[in-house]
Amino acid sequence: MSKYVTNELDAIIHGKIRLGIMAYLSSVGSASFVDLREKIQSSDGNLSANLSKLERVKYIKINKKFADKKPMTIISLTKRGRNAWIEYLSKMQALLAGGD
Amino acid sequence: MSKYVTNELDAIIHGKIRLGIMAYLSSVGSASFVDLREKIQSSDGNLSANLSKLERVKYIKINKKFADKKPMTIISLTKRGRNAWIEYLSKMQALLAGGD
Repeated sequence: MSKYVTNELDAIIHGKIRLGIMAYLSSVGSASFVDLREKIQSSDGNLSANLSKLERVKYIKINKKFADKKPMTIISLTKRGRNAWIEYLSKMQALLAGGD
Repeated sequence: MSKYVTNELDAIIHGKIRLGIMAYLSSVGSASFVDLREKIQSSDGNLSANLSKLERVKYIKINKKFADKKPMTIISLTKRGRNAWIEYLSKMQALLAGGD
């Protein structure tokens, strides 16, 4: 199979905002909504919509907790999410490496 | 600027089929329609539509010629296309490299 068959790339991860979310979470494991929003530089609505898509396929878990009596949303990469990321990463790296 | 600001990735290149086209052309410089279709494994219509988008922003040139009296379509990466590819590549590689 040619490495240029990009149609096989995971569309859930490939969306630009979700790609940023997955790349960041793969590095830090979990992050607060506020931290993620700052790193990705997206609006609340756009970030929420993309997090929902990732949650629906169980690539991330979203938990609400309280820190200093303030509600806080924590987003974590799941095992399934990490596996999907590793597969995406390996396909993309081959594609970007050049050569035939 | 955080490298996770993926919204800045070139949307013309990021589309899955166009990404395959650009990656392949960046490697070989130019290719026939038939060769490209085999490498990307896309339908004629889908490939044509994506080539048109790349041509519109002048990332590629499309030329028709005759080889053994048969018409042949040759697609080549332009200088502008190569520059856009290099920029995309550099952003993606940073993103995929991990770490914060």
